[in-house]
Amino acid sequence: MLKLQENDNSTKTLEQEGDLVVKVYLVGAGPGDPELITVKGLRLIKEADLIVYDRLVSKELLKHAKKEAELIYVGKERGKHTLKQEEINRLLVEKAKSGKYNVIVRLKGGDPFVFGRLTEEIRALNEAGIEWEVVPGITSAIAVPGLAGIPVTDRRFSSSFTVVTGQEDPKKKERRVDYSKLNADTIIILMGIKNLEKIVNEMLKSRKKDTPVAIIEKGSTEEERIVEGTLGNIVEIAREKEVKPPAIIVIGEVVRLRRELIPR
Amino acid sequence: MLKLQENDNSTKTLEQEGDLVVKVYLVGAGPGDPELITVKGLRLIKEADLIVYDRLVSKELLKHAKKEAELIYVGKERGKHTLKQEEINRLLVEKAKSGKYNVIVRLKGGDPFVFGRLTEEIRALNEAGIEWEVVPGITSAIAVPGLAGIPVTDRRFSSSFTVVTGQEDPKKKERRVDYSKLNADTIIILMGIKNLEKIVNEMLKSRKKDTPVAIIEKGSTEEERIVEGTLGNIVEIAREKEVKPPAIIVIGEVVRLRRELIPR
Repeated sequence: MLKLQENDNSTKTLEQEGDLVVKVYLVGAGPGDPELITVKGLRLIKEADLIVYDRLVSKELLKHAKKEAELIYVGKERGKHTLKQEEINRLLVEKAKSGKYNVIVRLKGGDPFVFGRLTEEIRALNEAGIEWEVVPGITSAIAVPGLAGIPVTDRRFSSSFTVVTGQEDPKKKERRVDYSKLNADTIIILMGIKNLEKIVNEMLKSRKKDTPVAIIEKGSTEEERIVEGTLGNIVEIAREKEVKPPAIIVIGEVVRLRRELIPR
Repeated sequence: MLKLQENDNSTKTLEQEGDLVVKVYLVGAGPGDPELITVKGLRLIKEADLIVYDRLVSKELLKHAKKEAELIYVGKERGKHTLKQEEINRLLVEKAKSGKYNVIVRLKGGDPFVFGRLTEEIRALNEAGIEWEVVPGITSAIAVPGLAGIPVTDRRFSSSFTVVTGQEDPKKKERRVDYSKLNADTIIILMGIKNLEKIVNEMLKSRKKDTPVAIIEKGSTEEERIVEGTLGNIVEIAREKEVKPPAIIVIGEVVRLRRELIPR
């Protein structure tokens, strides 16, 4: 599947690796449902010679890859030995420079622009002079609550929403998120289950105990489970129901819309 | 294209409208590029008997509709007479009840969950007992800055982002957005060009004059234009360059990443 760049010089051969058209596409796979990838994302999966994919990517999507395509899993799962970010960066650069691939797809869960470690991968590609392009995905932060009947905005209840991580880079001390100060109408917390109690206690400094909260576990998959409560009781409820990651926490009046907005 | 529900009763005829499988799909068309709709969204456009579409929907997408499909434009453009929200709600219900259609697609720009007047349309459908389903889209709020080289999150510069409308419902007086209090690392303002000066003045109460700002006009289309500045000078720059809606305003340190993250 090697292709040469089309230009005036007709004497080029496959040996001249420097002239290969190699491009790395950083593609968002969406929230889980394989039909929620973009048309462009699916097209690139079908065209890819190599797919480097994360843990939260639907296995259904990988079935669209060419038979001869190479698939590399780099997902991070607790307790399992998989690649660190620096190793992923290095892998992408090495593979792109190997001359073995034309189209490389770096497939990420959700949207690469939302907590996707995108800058780091792009910086590594730039330093190596490798072409790249980002293909956005549907972010779980908005679609998972939405598909569970909780729109993040609403003309009456929410003119703003904030998406925040529940797990900041521990090295980034000066910029620690203060959950008590987040003041959009709707707050969506990703990767927040481990720190749920701490987050809720901080939020209670500025929000009422009866503020509605929903936690959506394994959103947009067949194992989706939704737990509802308030800032006052959600920690206890989550403990009782044994809520586990991956899960998305939504806080705000829009949670109340759920009764009306569940598809029927 | 009338189809009857499959069940035990084999005596049903087309006249029995109550048995028609009619479903309204509220579909996000994405930020502009027609390849950035979801696979599911495109499939439904191809299957639709009726498509009710907005102004910010790519005309390319409509080319995928069946030859015999009916297309109704309900976009809102200043100075032009198009349908009000209540009229759109009524139209959807009437069309769904007419018995003439099987699959109705309500096609909206961006993501229906983000400032999409979704609750109002769903409420009207629920009241009429009509089946519906939402198909999320890529929201311009994240993809337009991202594709212009500004990721809304970044491990070093942004652990949180807020998306807010620059034009609130004027009837909703008690909940007016206070832009001076929005405190996520990245702020994204939709529909904010008309109120730019007011918004910037409010933000200057809590943020430094040299805070980076970018305005992206007609993002993700061929006419995209990007204007950069700071909270201190962006009002003047936008006036000079005659920035017009639709445009997205991004405020925060991540704007500085643009130099590095523009695709090459």
